[in-house]
Amino acid sequence: MSRNCLVAQSGGPTVAINSSLAGVISQALKSESIDKIYGARNGIQGVLNDHLVVLNDIFAQEENIKALKNTPSMYLGSCRYKLTDYKKDSSDYDKICEILKKYDIGYFFYIGGNDSMDTVAKFSVNVEEKGLDVKVVGIPKTIDNDLYCIDHTPGFGSAAKYIAASVLEMAHDTYIYAIDTVLIVEIMGRNAGWLTAASSLARTSYSQAPHLIYLPEKAFDKTAFVAKVQELLAEKHHVIVAVSEGIKDADGTYISAQGGKVDKFGHVMLSGTGKVLESIVAEEIGCKVRSVELNVLQRAASHVASKTDIEESFFLGVNGVMLAMKGRSGVMSTLSRVSDEPYAVEYGEADIEKIANYEKKIPGEWINEEGTDVLPAMEKYLRPLIQGENEIEYQNGIPQYIFLE
Amino acid sequence: MSRNCLVAQSGGPTVAINSSLAGVISQALKSESIDKIYGARNGIQGVLNDHLVVLNDIFAQEENIKALKNTPSMYLGSCRYKLTDYKKDSSDYDKICEILKKYDIGYFFYIGGNDSMDTVAKFSVNVEEKGLDVKVVGIPKTIDNDLYCIDHTPGFGSAAKYIAASVLEMAHDTYIYAIDTVLIVEIMGRNAGWLTAASSLARTSYSQAPHLIYLPEKAFDKTAFVAKVQELLAEKHHVIVAVSEGIKDADGTYISAQGGKVDKFGHVMLSGTGKVLESIVAEEIGCKVRSVELNVLQRAASHVASKTDIEESFFLGVNGVMLAMKGRSGVMSTLSRVSDEPYAVEYGEADIEKIANYEKKIPGEWINEEGTDVLPAMEKYLRPLIQGENEIEYQNGIPQYIFLE
Repeated sequence: MSRNCLVAQSGGPTVAINSSLAGVISQALKSESIDKIYGARNGIQGVLNDHLVVLNDIFAQEENIKALKNTPSMYLGSCRYKLTDYKKDSSDYDKICEILKKYDIGYFFYIGGNDSMDTVAKFSVNVEEKGLDVKVVGIPKTIDNDLYCIDHTPGFGSAAKYIAASVLEMAHDTYIYAIDTVLIVEIMGRNAGWLTAASSLARTSYSQAPHLIYLPEKAFDKTAFVAKVQELLAEKHHVIVAVSEGIKDADGTYISAQGGKVDKFGHVMLSGTGKVLESIVAEEIGCKVRSVELNVLQRAASHVASKTDIEESFFLGVNGVMLAMKGRSGVMSTLSRVSDEPYAVEYGEADIEKIANYEKKIPGEWINEEGTDVLPAMEKYLRPLIQGENEIEYQNGIPQYIFLE
Repeated sequence: MSRNCLVAQSGGPTVAINSSLAGVISQALKSESIDKIYGARNGIQGVLNDHLVVLNDIFAQEENIKALKNTPSMYLGSCRYKLTDYKKDSSDYDKICEILKKYDIGYFFYIGGNDSMDTVAKFSVNVEEKGLDVKVVGIPKTIDNDLYCIDHTPGFGSAAKYIAASVLEMAHDTYIYAIDTVLIVEIMGRNAGWLTAASSLARTSYSQAPHLIYLPEKAFDKTAFVAKVQELLAEKHHVIVAVSEGIKDADGTYISAQGGKVDKFGHVMLSGTGKVLESIVAEEIGCKVRSVELNVLQRAASHVASKTDIEESFFLGVNGVMLAMKGRSGVMSTLSRVSDEPYAVEYGEADIEKIANYEKKIPGEWINEEGTDVLPAMEKYLRPLIQGENEIEYQNGIPQYIFLE
């Protein structure tokens, strides 16, 4: 007897989260156990508001699957809604279960990051307790690469490729004047420095930019920073610094602490770390200095996505459906690396409870003692993730993406 | 009798200025009248400092010409040195002429923008007065598209393509949450709004972003801006605003000069037009708002260059050499559009005196009366310039460029 499935996307965008959605849809279309494929608009909120769309027809066309794989951000929309503890208030859970019954949902796929896996964890326990036959499977994504139980996260490789290409291009831009110049590049990452570490992939035989890399995993010392920049300027005219938005001083205070502004989850909102470092260089050294915040483009620039990342993200979606077909629930589709050279991964599953609400940070042994660079083990880990260029179709001179109106 | 040639690059970077250099070198290598091809390091400063490099050998290899075409910024380095009026102080001119004699330079190609064309203009008059047989030819470049006597400037089309693709990708990023959101995108352009106007090329059948476009050519009114954003938010959840860094109020004061203000936390507001508009929205409307400064990537992102732009820039370099071979001096290599559909250009020359030190602005009739958008004539003009994707070679997952150490 075939049932219907429901898929939703949540959290912040990446360029690969739609590829995972394409994988889910593609595999669900092939499955005889699945009839209708429902998508929830704006994550779990779409479920709560009974705002579902049927995806079968549009994605029966193979070219739409391909366009979806290559489209940035979330086709179904997103939300930042965190389910409350159902032992305290079960109203959201009850409402979701009603919707699942109404649409005869047998399989629920939730694509998201740490917070979304929290939703999956809570919900899978709740449906089991209620005795509902719904398999709940999480499919990971986050540019931050901070999930446990997975070698690296979908979306991260493309962001890393964008960052590496952009830092190299900005290095060419910086090197042209024969005067002392400092460029600060601010990269996303509140608590984990993976994306900033990926800037090291910009290095070539002719350019060692970024010359300094500052990560949230090591305390930032302003005096040491100024001394280091001065030392490098004495050797060469141009110093390029990659810095995580989330660097903190020895007391654990964000360098860009924003006067108590916090987001809905109580995370301190960061912006302006690059500007703070720019001011420090201007005031303490006085040379030409500029800061660039890579901002949302690092999570949205599908035009320079990593083919490896897009393909893996697709198969994590496919694998998620296969897990549900096997009757698995409360698990996350995952991948592990079986070889660095040649690079190879295998797909599997992980217990969601081990993933939700934890953040994987860079191992201390991959960062130099001074806290100004990453070590060779980091490149060995990162380099395979940015390999291959995704082929984007262009129309009228701009990338051709797909959009749900 | 063959002579040597000298080529230099000046001003700010673009992704196409090396393609023009490749065109000069490629054509010079073919010319029987040219023996050695010298490149000056860091523009006219390299000439003054006798810092020349011979380019024949490296670019005898066709793959290096191809890599040069695709490499951002200036292979030879740049300077921002403006020659003084030689009637007041001829020492720079005398020094340059010495170098030209020392290296038996018969042809001098200077690739640059407004200021560089000023150098070409002054210098071509000076060598003529001195009776030196040196043909001086300017080759245009600037992302700003603000030169006269040319349909559009080399480098502009690629910047326009980057801006259009990025605004579309950021629109996907912005549309995902079902809450009122404003995104401000700050684009380069102190006095001419061409680059900001190019954001209109991001529009597709499903996305009208940017919904508002503010250009330096029209006075910016804060009250009207707030009213317009509120009006659009009432219609739709998401408003994307493209703004030139150089917008001014009715008194002619730059909006960015209104930094130095203190926010409600007592922090001095960061300079930057986008940040100022972000603060206005936050304070007057209070919805979710973010600003993104495209910054140097819009002039350096070769990975998404316009093929049309790269090819035209190459032929402007080729054409520059051909002009010099015909004995022309004190002219700029130029192109004019002969047809919109099919798009076609022809190459020619322009008198440098008509170009140097002038800035071409957007015609008033291409901007709507409110000053919040561009009109259809603008798209007709712009669209052909971003056509075609330049094929970049990748190595180790990042673009493969060429660099002069």
